[in-house]
Amino acid sequence: MSSTANSPLAPLLAGEPEVVTVGASVLDEALEGQAVRRKPVQWRPPMQGTESALAAVLADPRRGAANEVAVGRLLGAHPVLVDVRPAADLLPAGTFLHAGPPITWERASGPMRGALIGAVLFEGLADDPEGAERLLRSGGVTLDSCHHHGVVGPMAGVVSPSMWMFQVRDAEYGGTAYCSLNEGLGKVLRYGAYGPEVIERLRWMSAVLGPVLRDALGRHGPVDVRSIIAQALQMGDELHNRNRAATSLLARELGPSIAESPHGPEVLRFIGANDHFFLNIGMAAGKVSTDAARNVPGSTLVVAMSRNGTDFGIQVSGTGDRWFTGPAGVPDGLYLGAFGPDDANPDIGDSTITETAGLGGFAMGAAPAIVRFVGGEVSDALAATESMYEITLAEHPAYQIPILGFRGTPTGIDVTLVARTGLLPVVNTGIAGRLAGTGQVGAGLVTPPSEAFTEALRALAAHTL
Amino acid sequence: MSSTANSPLAPLLAGEPEVVTVGASVLDEALEGQAVRRKPVQWRPPMQGTESALAAVLADPRRGAANEVAVGRLLGAHPVLVDVRPAADLLPAGTFLHAGPPITWERASGPMRGALIGAVLFEGLADDPEGAERLLRSGGVTLDSCHHHGVVGPMAGVVSPSMWMFQVRDAEYGGTAYCSLNEGLGKVLRYGAYGPEVIERLRWMSAVLGPVLRDALGRHGPVDVRSIIAQALQMGDELHNRNRAATSLLARELGPSIAESPHGPEVLRFIGANDHFFLNIGMAAGKVSTDAARNVPGSTLVVAMSRNGTDFGIQVSGTGDRWFTGPAGVPDGLYLGAFGPDDANPDIGDSTITETAGLGGFAMGAAPAIVRFVGGEVSDALAATESMYEITLAEHPAYQIPILGFRGTPTGIDVTLVARTGLLPVVNTGIAGRLAGTGQVGAGLVTPPSEAFTEALRALAAHTL
Repeated sequence: MSSTANSPLAPLLAGEPEVVTVGASVLDEALEGQAVRRKPVQWRPPMQGTESALAAVLADPRRGAANEVAVGRLLGAHPVLVDVRPAADLLPAGTFLHAGPPITWERASGPMRGALIGAVLFEGLADDPEGAERLLRSGGVTLDSCHHHGVVGPMAGVVSPSMWMFQVRDAEYGGTAYCSLNEGLGKVLRYGAYGPEVIERLRWMSAVLGPVLRDALGRHGPVDVRSIIAQALQMGDELHNRNRAATSLLARELGPSIAESPHGPEVLRFIGANDHFFLNIGMAAGKVSTDAARNVPGSTLVVAMSRNGTDFGIQVSGTGDRWFTGPAGVPDGLYLGAFGPDDANPDIGDSTITETAGLGGFAMGAAPAIVRFVGGEVSDALAATESMYEITLAEHPAYQIPILGFRGTPTGIDVTLVARTGLLPVVNTGIAGRLAGTGQVGAGLVTPPSEAFTEALRALAAHTL
Repeated sequence: MSSTANSPLAPLLAGEPEVVTVGASVLDEALEGQAVRRKPVQWRPPMQGTESALAAVLADPRRGAANEVAVGRLLGAHPVLVDVRPAADLLPAGTFLHAGPPITWERASGPMRGALIGAVLFEGLADDPEGAERLLRSGGVTLDSCHHHGVVGPMAGVVSPSMWMFQVRDAEYGGTAYCSLNEGLGKVLRYGAYGPEVIERLRWMSAVLGPVLRDALGRHGPVDVRSIIAQALQMGDELHNRNRAATSLLARELGPSIAESPHGPEVLRFIGANDHFFLNIGMAAGKVSTDAARNVPGSTLVVAMSRNGTDFGIQVSGTGDRWFTGPAGVPDGLYLGAFGPDDANPDIGDSTITETAGLGGFAMGAAPAIVRFVGGEVSDALAATESMYEITLAEHPAYQIPILGFRGTPTGIDVTLVARTGLLPVVNTGIAGRLAGTGQVGAGLVTPPSEAFTEALRALAAHTL
């Protein structure tokens, strides 16, 4: 006793012991049952096979400062809706854009093919779906990723020259990003449907919706998208699968200027009928914000997550425009009507830019009512957000969650934190039917393939100083 | 030992003891510190001097069934906005309405006097505030409670013949209720301001806003107010001091029909600039719902809570149109600009009809962001809702709070539960300046005077079978 009393470890034994429990919860629960004071620490083994790459990247002396710069730019970006323009202003002649990493017609999934067929019909480049398919198969249209042109598109994300796009500027760092206009739910091009009602709606959107929105915006002046997103998070949206508040706030803000057009009532009716109308503006806001964080040497920040219906790809600040991909998973969620998991296409769309920017699945804690759309319990929505703090670099200063005491949303996915914890980003998404022409079949949650992150980590390791 | 082993109390001593702690939390906290299993039960002494009346009312054999009928009607009411009409259609000639229980000019507070002066000027019955005051002091205008005419009005709640009102019908039980149109925040009549800009705005509201809304509603058809309230609760409103979602949803729903009017843009701009625009519709919805529960003999359900800036009054289903009053308190909250508690008038307005119908302070758990407006922490908002379950008869089937697992809002205040627990309803309200002409000075929380409930209890006791 006297020897331990003089030891520096003596205080450890002087009082009641407190136990630090790490990782598995069995020990923690057993101690709780015995009323022992304890401090649980979450810990998971790192992703398999990443140890040496992880060590190299963690040792990169640039990493801390580089991530601070990159995530600082992501948090500081101030997206503003400035214009609505025809895609022809931006697209190279003969090029159609699509969601996700680059893909060929041969590897394209059903909904991606369906949307491309629809866009060919909409552009009048073929008379029927068979003709459209022949044209696409023969390479008569050049395909490229939206992301390569400062564009994002939900689901199939197909953009052809006659479509109109929202133009969002970053008032802080000067970047520009675009997103198509939202068609509504059900049988729509972005979910791979291409029937006559789909094409007719696209024609009306180009002839009426786009020009009326452009003129209204011209009369109104730029719309502060950062402010609408911040408000919508306090109104139960997470800005990916729930955009009811943001859409209502936008309709309220632009409504008076839209009403000045002779087409005002029909345009307001179209917007009002679609709770997802704001999604595309939020996506362009996410794109312009994450783009501000690109190309910081040594940064391990994820600046894009995106799916083409076949591959899930990510891009990282420190590795330029390189894609790291793995197979897209099938979301787990709720299905519409008689549809079920067998009808689901693998994950598709650029809308994961919302999660990349700290919204969507990462902000589900702000949107407990979303569980009625994607499944699960209210506690799951809170748990999703809580867990994302473990793999992100910051909390967003403007995008806050009231129920968490106005804590900022978890923002800025760090490849090293994903690898170290084995926790994958939570994505909250629509589900497309796997057959071309079907449309939406449900909504749910999905995670990216871990390969995308392990590949990115190896590439980062190869570029360390 | 052997004698206790055979006793029926033996199991009590066989295992580890579990303690039931009642009321004061000191014992519970002490036991928690010793890791003793315990079951805390909330208990408070009943309101002083109510014991015999409480016993009589609790023993009334009609009570259970009567309350079931009354609260069932409150929960089942289905408010629908059907028209917008001039108050002259409804008001007896020479009568102005005001909020709260009946009051005379002599006992009226500053903001009530200010609003009455403004209404006289607006009606052209006097040329200046002094003339208006003379007219009112001399009884040249008959004053009566809004509630006596199926009307509710926020704050001073003054309604004069040239003002327009929302008409809300109960699609389930057929009742009708009215509420004035919301003027916006700051220097407005309902907060007791009566300057030229206030009167000019009222003129525009009667000449343009009312008629445009009536025509738009005619083209659109009735608006389902129950549905908007249900959605707004899932979007962070509590429908008394936070109506941002409900206002946005209304603007989105009626926007296309309003846009068909040549005055569409200016009307949409007026609505869009005022987060509280929906409040008055929600109040008429509350009035029509609580009115459905009136006049059930033996029922102890509160069917109105209302303040005139001097008195706080309640009405109870089982006691007809009788008011039970006590002095109105001064709300505790956050003040605008340089205003402080010394500038505050006692509690005023019919807007407590929202709390009477299970919204407002009772639904604050749905609206954590409200604490930025009325003060306190997010946990206070949740605690306010949780505590109101103790004094209410039901949970609303349509008005749900997602973060509480979609639990219905606490609805239907029971006088006996208030008396038994000593817990007073939580009211979430705007604060008017106490000097006539000032306008709004803040927003906060307040409780009714307990006298209103003890008086009501005695009256119920006098009418027991």
